[in-house]
Amino acid sequence: MAGNKKLEDLFEDTLRDVYYAERQITKALPKMAKAAQSDELRKGFEQHLEQTEGQIERLEQVFELIGKKPRGKTCDGILGIVDEGKTIMDEFKDSDALDAGLISAAQAVEHYEIARYGALKTWAQELGMNDAAKLLDATLSEEIATDQKLTQIAEASANLKAA
Amino acid sequence: MAGNKKLEDLFEDTLRDVYYAERQITKALPKMAKAAQSDELRKGFEQHLEQTEGQIERLEQVFELIGKKPRGKTCDGILGIVDEGKTIMDEFKDSDALDAGLISAAQAVEHYEIARYGALKTWAQELGMNDAAKLLDATLSEEIATDQKLTQIAEASANLKAA
Repeated sequence: MAGNKKLEDLFEDTLRDVYYAERQITKALPKMAKAAQSDELRKGFEQHLEQTEGQIERLEQVFELIGKKPRGKTCDGILGIVDEGKTIMDEFKDSDALDAGLISAAQAVEHYEIARYGALKTWAQELGMNDAAKLLDATLSEEIATDQKLTQIAEASANLKAA
Repeated sequence: MAGNKKLEDLFEDTLRDVYYAERQITKALPKMAKAAQSDELRKGFEQHLEQTEGQIERLEQVFELIGKKPRGKTCDGILGIVDEGKTIMDEFKDSDALDAGLISAAQAVEHYEIARYGALKTWAQELGMNDAAKLLDATLSEEIATDQKLTQIAEASANLKAA
């Protein structure tokens, strides 16, 4: 059976993986925003929640392009990453290092998504699905920008504390 | 209790997380190398295994710098990511899409590490631990280079198939 599988199957599997992941992220982000100590980080998480909703819509468009109903597939990677984020929120509650921990947890999420969207975009191009590739690339660029913004917030905060 | 935690604690927690992760990766890489269909990908995984052993040594040096014994901490993120890789290996065994799936699984691992080493490096700098920051930055650069190499292998293979 496995030998008959094609890149189209891998594409659809991974699309379902990231669709599940994005929906987990929409549940995690409000908790992270609520926990954040700095206004800048809280706003960053709130803005990323809005962005994530747009990314879910793009994924639904890609499902439509391949003629499939949008359906998630349990993704152990994101579940583990989100769980680690919850542990940090508990263990560093009310501590000076909480925001640093939240940023780190969020960057682990972003990097998971960067890896998945990068693969999906390459495969869409290989399969000649240019419209899908464009949608996936738009989200990939947003995830990279979000990761960079989180690094900036972390570094600005570090410099402030060092000063 | 949590309120008394400091950035030093977050640094040590994350160091233990990535130490555990790297050791999981040394177990996963030989299986991925064995499964790889192309020589280039197999060699890439073998080389990365050697590199990972050096990265573990660097982590042990960082533990020494903070005066702690090297100790891992179960990391659900990497366990989930590695499990997803195993599922792909099973489901796409003997299929044309196996190498694409292996590359994607490996890139999810790389991005997890890029996120963790990036945070550790920033915190080491903030804590004035310049030697630790240098060691962590050396590994971070290797992980970024490995991710880029995997993208090149994926794109070259895609172009070959499209031709």
